Amino acid sequence: MNSTNLDTIKMGKPIDDKKEMLYVIKVGGNVIEDETKLDSFLQSFSGIKENKILIHGGGKLATLLAKQLSVNQQLIDGRRITDTETLKIVTMVYAGYVNKNIVAQLQSKNCNALGLSGTDGNLIQAHKRKNSNIDYGFVGDIDVVNCLFIKSLLSKGLSLVIAPISHDNKGQLLNTNADTIAQEIAKAMTKDYEVHLIYSFEKSGVLLNPEDAKSVIKTINPTYYKELKDNNIIFDGMIPKLDNAFIALQQGVRNVVIGKAECLQQLISGESGTNIISQ
Amino acid sequence: MNSTNLDTIKMGKPIDDKKEMLYVIKVGGNVIEDETKLDSFLQSFSGIKENKILIHGGGKLATLLAKQLSVNQQLIDGRRITDTETLKIVTMVYAGYVNKNIVAQLQSKNCNALGLSGTDGNLIQAHKRKNSNIDYGFVGDIDVVNCLFIKSLLSKGLSLVIAPISHDNKGQLLNTNADTIAQEIAKAMTKDYEVHLIYSFEKSGVLLNPEDAKSVIKTINPTYYKELKDNNIIFDGMIPKLDNAFIALQQGVRNVVIGKAECLQQLISGESGTNIISQ
Repeated sequence: MNSTNLDTIKMGKPIDDKKEMLYVIKVGGNVIEDETKLDSFLQSFSGIKENKILIHGGGKLATLLAKQLSVNQQLIDGRRITDTETLKIVTMVYAGYVNKNIVAQLQSKNCNALGLSGTDGNLIQAHKRKNSNIDYGFVGDIDVVNCLFIKSLLSKGLSLVIAPISHDNKGQLLNTNADTIAQEIAKAMTKDYEVHLIYSFEKSGVLLNPEDAKSVIKTINPTYYKELKDNNIIFDGMIPKLDNAFIALQQGVRNVVIGKAECLQQLISGESGTNIISQ
Repeated sequence: MNSTNLDTIKMGKPIDDKKEMLYVIKVGGNVIEDETKLDSFLQSFSGIKENKILIHGGGKLATLLAKQLSVNQQLIDGRRITDTETLKIVTMVYAGYVNKNIVAQLQSKNCNALGLSGTDGNLIQAHKRKNSNIDYGFVGDIDVVNCLFIKSLLSKGLSLVIAPISHDNKGQLLNTNADTIAQEIAKAMTKDYEVHLIYSFEKSGVLLNPEDAKSVIKTINPTYYKELKDNNIIFDGMIPKLDNAFIALQQGVRNVVIGKAECLQQLISGESGTNIISQ
């Protein structure tokens, strides 16, 4: 232990100050399908000097391919019912087409990226969702994130690009929610890194008025969150996102930001998006 | 340097004897599409204790998906003309569906596998094929294999599963022949490993009589190869395979074996398949 570390302890500050920074960034919404928006987003992502992990979706492209192949798609509360044919489609689209194109573009921007699904290096182990009411099919709920593997890759200067597919360690791939993967990775990595979790999509943040794109709420703490929910200002898909954000903060994630993918730099600097804070 | 190494040098033996072993195994043919055959092959692969890399094809599944999507496929001398839609298909099938299912199955067999395409970690850099006669489209000819990256992954006990997709480092993915990838990786890794290259597919080896599956030629050296070619016993697709095998041997690969994927253990032990030797 060097003198700086000793000084830090003496001053009563947490030794966490010495941890390296890690950005865990989820990109979703229509950004994935829009070549120009995606390019701009990846340019910003490649400019991040610290450790970084990108988790992507690709749902709209999967839906399009399913339509082309006449594979009927059923969504319940925004979750895709994943039968055998649908699993094949999401594996091809997420882990194949979207993942490899993002990695190739990052490579061209001097960002040494490595694309992964949850089965690669046993990255994300999950189990098939059990639900007495709805059979979601081959949908995974996460059991374990392989922190050591992630750390060893990051330490080589690699930036990780993760497709939302996990596995059950018995040979079965599982379709897994990308928001949840981002949250679970962020939480799991707090032991070794100062983790910043960013959910980026097509909207500018959490809106006070869904009709007004400029009505972004700058900061939400638990008290304000309750008030917003009680008044039905926040509802539907935003509730699990925010619930998860507060859980992530409680479990050691430094901060959570929700905002527009095209403004990634501003989301990082705090100039844009909604900041979720614990107090 | 320990005394054993010093002894080896004193004895005049090459220090290469101390290199770790690496198996570079290509699996192709109809094995990928046959669940039972693939499972048996992966069981044998997972049993290899030494460093190992698997390069897979998936052409028949790509052709099937192209047909389902009404994307016309054109093959010249067994090489797929790769337009934008076909590139999307092979990226989805090779790097997505086939790669991730193989990795998931290996994980279930206690083999810690990592699936990669050539863009991941800048594994295989290539350029778009230039040919005055035929426009192959987005087909890559390999420039560089990232040996350091491969070595760093193998040293962690990971087994690599590589899809035949490379990139040009300018954001473009490229469809790339899996046999050639196997050969280039094998050659590139000879600096650090004692490399054994195995081409496995549905046939038992190089056949003296194509009608007789039992007429496997045990050993082929350059003189015998010339004789076989002169007498038209070896022709078509087998010629580039064997030409490449001899080049690999010249460039330091320890041995090359061609044979049946279901007999992988016997191919390794020398009990099955055709051995290509340099003298």
